[in-house]
Amino acid sequence: MATGDRLAGVIGGMGPDATIDFMSRVLACTPATRDQDHVRMVVEHDPRIPNRQFAMYGEGADPGPAIATLAARLEGAGAEFIVMPCNLAHAWEDDIRAAISIPFISIVSESVKRVEQRCTAGETIGLFTTPGCFKAGLYQEALAGHELVLQTPDELSESMALVERIKAGDKSEPVASGLRALAVRLVSRGAHALIAACTEFTLVLEPSMFAVPFISSTDVLAEKTVALALCQEPLPER
Amino acid sequence: MATGDRLAGVIGGMGPDATIDFMSRVLACTPATRDQDHVRMVVEHDPRIPNRQFAMYGEGADPGPAIATLAARLEGAGAEFIVMPCNLAHAWEDDIRAAISIPFISIVSESVKRVEQRCTAGETIGLFTTPGCFKAGLYQEALAGHELVLQTPDELSESMALVERIKAGDKSEPVASGLRALAVRLVSRGAHALIAACTEFTLVLEPSMFAVPFISSTDVLAEKTVALALCQEPLPER
Repeated sequence: MATGDRLAGVIGGMGPDATIDFMSRVLACTPATRDQDHVRMVVEHDPRIPNRQFAMYGEGADPGPAIATLAARLEGAGAEFIVMPCNLAHAWEDDIRAAISIPFISIVSESVKRVEQRCTAGETIGLFTTPGCFKAGLYQEALAGHELVLQTPDELSESMALVERIKAGDKSEPVASGLRALAVRLVSRGAHALIAACTEFTLVLEPSMFAVPFISSTDVLAEKTVALALCQEPLPER
Repeated sequence: MATGDRLAGVIGGMGPDATIDFMSRVLACTPATRDQDHVRMVVEHDPRIPNRQFAMYGEGADPGPAIATLAARLEGAGAEFIVMPCNLAHAWEDDIRAAISIPFISIVSESVKRVEQRCTAGETIGLFTTPGCFKAGLYQEALAGHELVLQTPDELSESMALVERIKAGDKSEPVASGLRALAVRLVSRGAHALIAACTEFTLVLEPSMFAVPFISSTDVLAEKTVALALCQEPLPER
């Protein structure tokens, strides 16, 4: 093993395509000209974790124990910190933290830090997300106390229907356009910037499609993972 | 955990992009309409394993121990079988098998089975590969005794130069065209079919680019992984 790097543990499979996309973005933002420059990861890719959207509405099994088990397995595999490229699953962050003694890097906290960098006081930030993630209130809580106006989606079922199509393998132009239209609606209602608070969205959308800053939570987490894995930053307290 | 499925262990990072491509192909060939239909994988993604091409020419560290360690870790993580989406790394298959007590599914053996299905006796199969994999003789050995004529590359340094560009992140049209030209040379020399015996090649090439059957070792291994993970096939003896 190379010295001077840290093993990243990835709780994956929520969804599977989003996990692979996250790994691709880790690669893309690593300064590398050969295999050995890239970061080490151990990935527990378990798409069979109970549905998180359903769970937020009290339906189906609690995914918390399964997610926490994966976190503990990653620590057992030698991971030095843990990331999870799924926003909604952070509703079970307490279960994860209770199961491990290494740092867990929250995609929500990191994305909010990025919002702080990109937005100035008084600006309106559009929360572009799924019903479950909205109901969980993760971003609403993380942004409370910031001098920003939060613009929340005026509808949620449409985004869910499109995410379900992506999860079924449909990343076609109509799906991308449909999601883009929902995001643009937040802009037309005054958002100066958008947080893409679902790692499925960025399977079909990219920042260049928008006239305002589009903060991809997947990219934010990928960049943080590389910085920590390459020891460019100290590990946070757990 | 769902019953009726098996956890696949993936020795990854050789190279990192090829591992992610393999995972994408696993997803693509899984019959799924929702996350929970997909297969569980645990992936040890270690791009820092010593260079396999160099090792085949006696330069640098032996990658065998590092690869075997990953295999053992995957078994420890509960993997029920192990795959490795890198052809050349199969030169260290004995090290892997010595380190585990679960089945190891060889990309070489599986690709040769596919050749058997696609080719008839007397046909010429073009071995499209890298210098290290050619020198290791993996496919030459696996195809010995088959009634096929093996067409080997007339040059190897060009393919290596192109693979190095891919590993440095260059998947541009010139790289794809360059590799395609090398493959076509095998066809012009009489190959009735091609084995793409390098998981980097299929990052820029696809079967539709060729007039003859183009057997992607990455796809073959992905399909086998899904069949075993979904219990569509019995596990082989180890």
